[in-house]
Amino acid sequence: MKSFLTLKSVDEVLTLLAGFPPLPGETLPLDAALQRYLARDVKASEDVPGFDRSTVDGYAVAARDVFGAQESSPALLRCVGDCPMGQIPDMRLGEGETARILTGGMLPKGADAVVMVEHSRPTGNGMVEIIRSLAPGEHVLRHDEDVACGQLAILAGRRLRAQELGLLAALGQTEVEVHRRPRVAIISTGDEIVPFETRPAPGEVRDVNVHTLAALCQGEGACIVARTLVRDDRERLTSNVATALEQADVVLVSGGSSAGMRDYTVEIFQSMPHSQLLVHGVAISPGKPFILARAGDACLMGLPGHVAGALLCAQVFVAAVLRRLQGAEAQIAPQVRATLSRPVASTQGRREYIRVRLQPSDHGWTAVPILGPSGLIAGMVQADALIVCPENSEGLYAGEEVNALLLR
Amino acid sequence: MKSFLTLKSVDEVLTLLAGFPPLPGETLPLDAALQRYLARDVKASEDVPGFDRSTVDGYAVAARDVFGAQESSPALLRCVGDCPMGQIPDMRLGEGETARILTGGMLPKGADAVVMVEHSRPTGNGMVEIIRSLAPGEHVLRHDEDVACGQLAILAGRRLRAQELGLLAALGQTEVEVHRRPRVAIISTGDEIVPFETRPAPGEVRDVNVHTLAALCQGEGACIVARTLVRDDRERLTSNVATALEQADVVLVSGGSSAGMRDYTVEIFQSMPHSQLLVHGVAISPGKPFILARAGDACLMGLPGHVAGALLCAQVFVAAVLRRLQGAEAQIAPQVRATLSRPVASTQGRREYIRVRLQPSDHGWTAVPILGPSGLIAGMVQADALIVCPENSEGLYAGEEVNALLLR
Repeated sequence: MKSFLTLKSVDEVLTLLAGFPPLPGETLPLDAALQRYLARDVKASEDVPGFDRSTVDGYAVAARDVFGAQESSPALLRCVGDCPMGQIPDMRLGEGETARILTGGMLPKGADAVVMVEHSRPTGNGMVEIIRSLAPGEHVLRHDEDVACGQLAILAGRRLRAQELGLLAALGQTEVEVHRRPRVAIISTGDEIVPFETRPAPGEVRDVNVHTLAALCQGEGACIVARTLVRDDRERLTSNVATALEQADVVLVSGGSSAGMRDYTVEIFQSMPHSQLLVHGVAISPGKPFILARAGDACLMGLPGHVAGALLCAQVFVAAVLRRLQGAEAQIAPQVRATLSRPVASTQGRREYIRVRLQPSDHGWTAVPILGPSGLIAGMVQADALIVCPENSEGLYAGEEVNALLLR
Repeated sequence: MKSFLTLKSVDEVLTLLAGFPPLPGETLPLDAALQRYLARDVKASEDVPGFDRSTVDGYAVAARDVFGAQESSPALLRCVGDCPMGQIPDMRLGEGETARILTGGMLPKGADAVVMVEHSRPTGNGMVEIIRSLAPGEHVLRHDEDVACGQLAILAGRRLRAQELGLLAALGQTEVEVHRRPRVAIISTGDEIVPFETRPAPGEVRDVNVHTLAALCQGEGACIVARTLVRDDRERLTSNVATALEQADVVLVSGGSSAGMRDYTVEIFQSMPHSQLLVHGVAISPGKPFILARAGDACLMGLPGHVAGALLCAQVFVAAVLRRLQGAEAQIAPQVRATLSRPVASTQGRREYIRVRLQPSDHGWTAVPILGPSGLIAGMVQADALIVCPENSEGLYAGEEVNALLLR
């Protein structure tokens, strides 16, 4: 228990988590890669759009043919036809000639700009008046203007959103290499814990942590390879952790409720092959008894049994390691700026996370701290967001502006 | 094209989308319901935690037995045993008696409070000194303090996050009723469009919209039941829309690139059974040619062919209808407060969405508008967020504080 005396800071723990190596890549069909993290930089293997393309409906022209054109002295051009969509136009514009073109159409040879249809006046007998001068390249998307062949299109570590999939599709990437999903094993411990499908006898409670932890991990892209409930028994927990390590990249142990079990967990983690205890106790509230160890490249975490503490440690530490294992670049936490409705006291020297409801107000949002014991599950459900009292603070004032981190 | 003269506002369109009826419910195993929307209110069918529970490690006492206890005049109690975890303690505390208890343990009969172990001093021969007075109920979680039987636990329309699944697990709900997933059919049109696995000939471009739209819809909980690419041919598009309506709740048609095709889309939507054209043109940029119709309870949408316009309409309108169909309660958009790096011009009378990169700065975030034609896919990938120029604005100033809506 000695190490408990020197609590690590939240930032120190996050730095340690950044030391786990990213998982190897796997190749997926493009449409199966949503929200996954790119394993290597993607360079464009061709130009996009690949040809000079009109951005408006109108007339393809050589800009020099309409130089100085205006309402009162239009340029008169001969229309030699329509540019077909999806094909190379089979004409070449000579001096004084134009062709009709639609948005997305390929410019014919001899054209270097497009006049919007609003700035043209057909005069019959195949002639059209252009009433606006324009510069070469106007209303044209150049063949390599979106992406040029050889250009770095997306960097490794990027989370693939709809738009990244769109760019990869535009480049013809039918497959993409992403870091494989982290495999997570979840072990709940505690003599008072029963599976959620069991009606608890007096003194027993249902296992909540396995559900909240699994959901949080899945939301971060992990797959759950084992869910186990173990009594407060050192040997059984040891063998369960060893089995979990055979199949998982991350092993989460929540509970046990007894002080003795908490020490077991540290010793069991330390007894695993190639293991190293990294953290035993963090200056965080809730969640102080958090334990972190490494066994080879696998990550072992001991979370509080307390549902609020377990979920907070998962939001702060488990999410961080799952992103790290997937090689994720830094991300911006979804948040809103809010005004605190009432003062909040905090203990100096630890980072405190306070659950708040967000209520719309005249000037944006009001953050209303959720009262009552922090262990309540109902309070977790009421919370829209978390606000942070930093380590060097004794609390926050009513009316203070805070960043409320949205709980997704 | 007459209706084009009266563009609807973004808010008018959102109000029309709120008129679509939510889809029926379906029952899922609890752990399969993450990020789905609850179809009916859940009332607690039992108390949680179900028994009076200690919130600390220490000694269970009757508060009256330690009344006035302090460091200099402790109360001396006889320790009669340990409260087991997960069971009803088999003792009853008489006057002057106490029992050891762990966090989460059930209080024995005769006890109404728990003294923290830090405020106790065992004196040997089975006696323990208590050095702190405490009130009845202190360090005790009452049997119904988290959730009381009969209490409304979660309201219909709530998105099921990790914590909602936790509360449902605590209540023993192994199954949960959620609105079923919306089924979406995506039709791309345009003579210049080829499937993404095809190498485009000069003049052709790959179909990007089907990928971005599918990803966005899946991110909002929908499943994609059909992906079709149709040439600019009125009859084929008609039969494809009719087929799509047989299997989908939402039909998205993106393109066609020709002005004529855009009119087709309106007429085809109007030709479907029980159809009603609701919107033809919106005061939004990009995305003005947006079309909305209803066919029975199904939603038909015409999106621009332009990838940026199609994606923006999807983010603003498709996401809204998918949430509505899933009975979602109002949600807070993930965002950050940022300072605009340079001025942005906008046209009065339409709501303009501007793509920005977010860069960390001394005081938070700087929003840097992405330059270049708005149609570029590469610009979509660079964007972290959108900022909004409202209808009544001619632009935003450099240095102005803006809400940057994060693109997830």
